[in-house]
Amino acid sequence: MDSQNIVMAKGFKASAAAAGLKKNKGLDISLIYSECDATAAGVFTTNKVKAAPVLLTRENISSGRARAIIANAGNANACTGQAGLENARTTVRLVADGLGLRPEDILVASTGVIGKPLDMDLVSAAIPKLIGSLSADGLTSAATAIMTTDSFLKFSQYDGHAGGSPFCIQGIAKGAGMIMPDMATMLCFIISDIAVEADDLKKALHNSVERTFNRITVDGDTSTNDMVLVLANGTAGNGRLSQQDFGKFQSGLTQVMGELARMIAKDGEGASKLVDLQIKGAMSAEDAINAARTVANSSLVKTAFYGQDPNWGRIMAALGRSGIVMDEASVDIWVNDIQIVSNGLGLGVEVERRAAEMMTLDKFTVTVDLKQGRYEDKVVTCDLTHDYVSINADYRT
Amino acid sequence: MDSQNIVMAKGFKASAAAAGLKKNKGLDISLIYSECDATAAGVFTTNKVKAAPVLLTRENISSGRARAIIANAGNANACTGQAGLENARTTVRLVADGLGLRPEDILVASTGVIGKPLDMDLVSAAIPKLIGSLSADGLTSAATAIMTTDSFLKFSQYDGHAGGSPFCIQGIAKGAGMIMPDMATMLCFIISDIAVEADDLKKALHNSVERTFNRITVDGDTSTNDMVLVLANGTAGNGRLSQQDFGKFQSGLTQVMGELARMIAKDGEGASKLVDLQIKGAMSAEDAINAARTVANSSLVKTAFYGQDPNWGRIMAALGRSGIVMDEASVDIWVNDIQIVSNGLGLGVEVERRAAEMMTLDKFTVTVDLKQGRYEDKVVTCDLTHDYVSINADYRT
Repeated sequence: MDSQNIVMAKGFKASAAAAGLKKNKGLDISLIYSECDATAAGVFTTNKVKAAPVLLTRENISSGRARAIIANAGNANACTGQAGLENARTTVRLVADGLGLRPEDILVASTGVIGKPLDMDLVSAAIPKLIGSLSADGLTSAATAIMTTDSFLKFSQYDGHAGGSPFCIQGIAKGAGMIMPDMATMLCFIISDIAVEADDLKKALHNSVERTFNRITVDGDTSTNDMVLVLANGTAGNGRLSQQDFGKFQSGLTQVMGELARMIAKDGEGASKLVDLQIKGAMSAEDAINAARTVANSSLVKTAFYGQDPNWGRIMAALGRSGIVMDEASVDIWVNDIQIVSNGLGLGVEVERRAAEMMTLDKFTVTVDLKQGRYEDKVVTCDLTHDYVSINADYRT
Repeated sequence: MDSQNIVMAKGFKASAAAAGLKKNKGLDISLIYSECDATAAGVFTTNKVKAAPVLLTRENISSGRARAIIANAGNANACTGQAGLENARTTVRLVADGLGLRPEDILVASTGVIGKPLDMDLVSAAIPKLIGSLSADGLTSAATAIMTTDSFLKFSQYDGHAGGSPFCIQGIAKGAGMIMPDMATMLCFIISDIAVEADDLKKALHNSVERTFNRITVDGDTSTNDMVLVLANGTAGNGRLSQQDFGKFQSGLTQVMGELARMIAKDGEGASKLVDLQIKGAMSAEDAINAARTVANSSLVKTAFYGQDPNWGRIMAALGRSGIVMDEASVDIWVNDIQIVSNGLGLGVEVERRAAEMMTLDKFTVTVDLKQGRYEDKVVTCDLTHDYVSINADYRT
């Protein structure tokens, strides 16, 4: 899809501005607005250290309704104490005043450097510009403005029918480093014109997050600022959702969030390869996800991906410390359809050469069959590269 | 200490040879030998995937006695199945035959690539050379032969008195990547001429490991091959150890292992900085070590160390996901004696500039006071650098 010509879901507008919060002076603040009342749901970071906008948005979204999202990059407004919370409240109040809404109608999100006071002069000056430039084709600019170390814009759309009416779901996201299951430095905003009850929206969001964003990992860190927000304003006119139509909405939401999640993993800081890490034959569901995450987060495994080296010994070592039930002598490992390990033993130089060839691709699958039970799970990860180190050693300087 | 002129503890000899197991054709196999019976104790990897030499040495050391250690680099003999175990047994038998000992007197260790069959022709050919060249100044060569990606030789010595007799403790180690608490790719061999009962030796070893090797981390991975072995042959003639003398031995052992552990952290793959990560004021002992390990293993924190950037937000984020009891608004953080965070808030650009200066040193301390209780702990770690990625992306190719 050409993201330059997106028409937003009915009844939504968006805009972006350069407030001066980013070092490069690019677009760094954005507004998404629904012309009518929308049901709303959110999922937030599990980190005990929560940024001010996370605290405030969690409070405001508890009603299950919202009208707008104001989001900035360049400063996370995290670890900023009471003053940080005041700044988030002020931001929300300024947006509400400008739009003729109540402060509790506004959701706020931030991403960027932690521990630095938000420059409210810059934010205050930008808000009237954002409100003045709201338009039905502003979503691309809004998506651009939330990018930090992201190297490409992340947008996904799903079109469906419910109750005889067409509806659409649109999502934008930012990711990059600190991406770990259970929400990480990642913002994702979803809008839809479908009519859906707040409780159903919440249920759909949690289901989709569990199957998408909670199945990607970049570096095992978890950020203070992550959130996924979804607004549905009912302008599609689909009436009350049947169970079947809810199912369509749910799968559309999962598709949009799944695409965004894969884009985030692919754009992991410095990443050059997208790897699907698939665990089969685990004794329990918990073992399946623990094994997948431990292997996917191993620095040694991730540097081997970067080196295009089917170094399965590192995968075995990661499995061995993951705490799962396993028997070394039962483990099979594949790279795409090339089996490199059978019953814990390597299948030799020739298959490894063929596996190494697969690993030159920018996308491949590693499958581990533990042969302990019937559970399976999958995590999408990326490689650990020289560029990851460069980006993160130089982030503030 | 000049490691080139080491005279070994009384009654010990060592040697090394180039068997051809290392890519660079350097010294890669070594033998340490006690001329008389020695008490022996070992600590082994907690990884569920255990290399063949780990399985065999654990079995042989269960008697509390041993006479020799045969160790090779270049091949880990891990994930090699029944054939690997046979190869370890053959190695041990060849050494026993050559020295006129029983196989169960011999301990065996391996490090290097996982999943590749050990070339027994090379090992068999090297063993007579090792036995023929045993000498009282062979420890340096033995230490050289166990190195893999290590950039310097690791040796430490302690001299003391017990029961009126002088005794010494000497240790050699190899480390580099995959270093994580609970034993990681690390070999450490300690010899002493002290007379100590097997049970006391075991107790002393476990105490020292907990305070030294289990308090360092390089990349959070845990290897299949780690072991720490200690042999004490009683040639010091100190008679039965008094409780006081046991205390001296214990502290000497901790000193030697502490020095070796710090050398391993300093020589973490690609590392340019050694960082003491100190947690104070934790609610429990478990919280203290969990917090220290989570911060010390965070890729984002470690790249910030490399970038000489006092990016305390990443430390807060790591604390927040560590699962400990904490209150963001109580956290204080220092770099050496420069406080950069007070009660969860940054103390400004000027102190951060001074902290950044401290971080240009190749060794500094980061202290976190959680102010939740009276427990503290410390982990020694290193930075995550471009060289770490280079070393591990290219390790096998």
